[in-house]
Amino acid sequence: MMRIGVADTTFARVDMGGFAVDELRKTGTGFKIQRKTVPGVKDLPVASKKLLDEDGCDLVIALGMPGKDPIDKVCAHEASQGLIQVQLMTNKHIVEVFVHEDEAKNQKELAWLAERRTREHAANAYDLLFRPEQLTRNAGKGLRQGFGDVGPIG
Amino acid sequence: MMRIGVADTTFARVDMGGFAVDELRKTGTGFKIQRKTVPGVKDLPVASKKLLDEDGCDLVIALGMPGKDPIDKVCAHEASQGLIQVQLMTNKHIVEVFVHEDEAKNQKELAWLAERRTREHAANAYDLLFRPEQLTRNAGKGLRQGFGDVGPIG
Amino acid sequence: MMRIGVADTTFARVDMGGFAVDELRKTGTGFKIQRKTVPGVKDLPVASKKLLDEDGCDLVIALGMPGKDPIDKVCAHEASQGLIQVQLMTNKHIVEVFVHEDEAKNQKELAWLAERRTREHAANAYDLLFRPEQLTRNAGKGLRQGFGDVGPIG
Amino acid sequence: MMRIGVADTTFARVDMGGFAVDELRKTGTGFKIQRKTVPGVKDLPVASKKLLDEDGCDLVIALGMPGKDPIDKVCAHEASQGLIQVQLMTNKHIVEVFVHEDEAKNQKELAWLAERRTREHAANAYDLLFRPEQLTRNAGKGLRQGFGDVGPIG
Amino acid sequence: MMRIGVADTTFARVDMGGFAVDELRKTGTGFKIQRKTVPGVKDLPVASKKLLDEDGCDLVIALGMPGKDPIDKVCAHEASQGLIQVQLMTNKHIVEVFVHEDEAKNQKELAWLAERRTREHAANAYDLLFRPEQLTRNAGKGLRQGFGDVGPIG
Repeated sequence: MMRIGVADTTFARVDMGGFAVDELRKTGTGFKIQRKTVPGVKDLPVASKKLLDEDGCDLVIALGMPGKDPIDKVCAHEASQGLIQVQLMTNKHIVEVFVHEDEAKNQKELAWLAERRTREHAANAYDLLFRPEQLTRNAGKGLRQGFGDVGPIG
Repeated sequence: MMRIGVADTTFARVDMGGFAVDELRKTGTGFKIQRKTVPGVKDLPVASKKLLDEDGCDLVIALGMPGKDPIDKVCAHEASQGLIQVQLMTNKHIVEVFVHEDEAKNQKELAWLAERRTREHAANAYDLLFRPEQLTRNAGKGLRQGFGDVGPIG
Repeated sequence: MMRIGVADTTFARVDMGGFAVDELRKTGTGFKIQRKTVPGVKDLPVASKKLLDEDGCDLVIALGMPGKDPIDKVCAHEASQGLIQVQLMTNKHIVEVFVHEDEAKNQKELAWLAERRTREHAANAYDLLFRPEQLTRNAGKGLRQGFGDVGPIG
Repeated sequence: MMRIGVADTTFARVDMGGFAVDELRKTGTGFKIQRKTVPGVKDLPVASKKLLDEDGCDLVIALGMPGKDPIDKVCAHEASQGLIQVQLMTNKHIVEVFVHEDEAKNQKELAWLAERRTREHAANAYDLLFRPEQLTRNAGKGLRQGFGDVGPIG
Repeated sequence: MMRIGVADTTFARVDMGGFAVDELRKTGTGFKIQRKTVPGVKDLPVASKKLLDEDGCDLVIALGMPGKDPIDKVCAHEASQGLIQVQLMTNKHIVEVFVHEDEAKNQKELAWLAERRTREHAANAYDLLFRPEQLTRNAGKGLRQGFGDVGPIG
């Protein structure tokens, strides 16, 4: 049985981990879920690595909500670099789901965006593990997670 | 027989992977093609590494279409750093083909640019594997992929 | 018995290491503390790695106070990248506690902020090692260290 | 016999590889030269690593001419990070010779600059391998490659 | 007997390596010094790694004087990232001493600053190897190298 890790933070203002678990359960079966919560996005790389190395996960969904200040952007960048590095060390996918506070025009939209992006990426995570051909079918289709798809051109 | 990996995204708005496969087939023989599609450019490094490590590819063409916003530029930068790291871990070339949405003045040009750059880099990939002397012949010639060559000077 | 490393600097203007040790002792038992002081934040990554590799620490709290100039921001960024890298090399958490000089409006607030953030992150460090379920209970709660929590939304 | 690798690009507008080979031959003996040409600067790290790992080179001269646009600066930065990483993986020097298109005020000066900087760095490469004491003699002398030396102060 | 490496550049305009050697000799005994000079700061990471790996050094002082232009800042950043990476690969300290040309208001001050910062960091290097308790005594004291200390607050 596959094992999917869910890593999230106490810094986020929405229970993104909860949405990820819920969406994964709705999407399919054949996997167990392992959850780990850390203070902020910069703690996600090692948390993800421990989920992959120590808890035997086959894929991790890493969830975070970086703030709107310049320092928050730097933290998110460092976290993303770390998450990519973990993937290269383990040869396993980490689906990064970051929602920046300044992507939304108010708190209501931010909560909506965080939930929707998390759910759409949980489906991507499922596809990466169980039906990669579904992703290839959508290659070049201009898909987005959260706000609407922009669609293909040309 | 050589094996060439093609990694692309559902985020792109053009089927860059399809163009790469088509151009490789037109350019020569002696290789098989393995394709893998992921959500976005930040998923390309591990996808490429898996193509090289697990699927036995000798080279990967990594295709993406970063958006026009600052956050998209950061994502592209992180993806590029990861792609370079993969190459150093495997001692194999990854030909990165990124087309930024804001490189073109409209959607029609963007579609044209994505196809042309992909096709020209597919030829580069073929040369790297099968006829490296062709590249040395063009050293310092001011070649570009997509828009026209700027040519040599001096 | 667990071992917690505390790495701090002579560059900081507040004895952040002292606060971390004090708060850890107030928070619980079952661990020893190992302290190492270096000149600046860029020395923290290797100091932390030595604490983890050579001194057998299970977690490190890395404390620094970057200055307000652009070069200081770059140094902090490099230090943070290094601290993440150490975590990936050791599969152990490093709780980074950086207080930027320009986060506070005067020296008094800066001293207050450095102490409070250090103490709150020392508690996070304790939770990561001894009661991770406490962190999961706070997932998505909009917690902050130093200034007040922003709270959950939606 | 020592082996010096020369890695250059088809993107550059001047045959920097040719100048490097010519200057090395004029400077001394006791080495063979191995050349490898790639499309752009981001392909230089793995090309250099292959020269060092697979072709047995003892040092590589990596030559590139980044463009003048912001994206070109990012590419050059990524390439440089990769080139440093290769050196740390191999414990061998890579002499990076990058000439940015906007360093010169016109094409004529650009061609001149690319040749001169390449030749001066080829001499540095020779010194690193064969007479390191020559470099120590010039420590702190304000030497530059391409435009004139600025000289020592104080 | 301990071994301290001193890595410096021909790019610097002051003989920083000479000052480091002189200050180390004045500060204490029980160590040998190994010096290596390279063209610029981007060559310092591998030079430092070779000093640690091949020459058996226990610590390296890496000295450089980045220029005042944006490209110089990028080079310094890349060098610093490399120097941190070397430390993590070797579990040994590298004391980075960079003096930016635009930190001083004229050449005289620049020469003074380069000497003073080098000497103060040479003392730090000695402390890291021989009397680390001295650094812990100064934790949080707002020490600076070069210009005057800013002192503790709160």
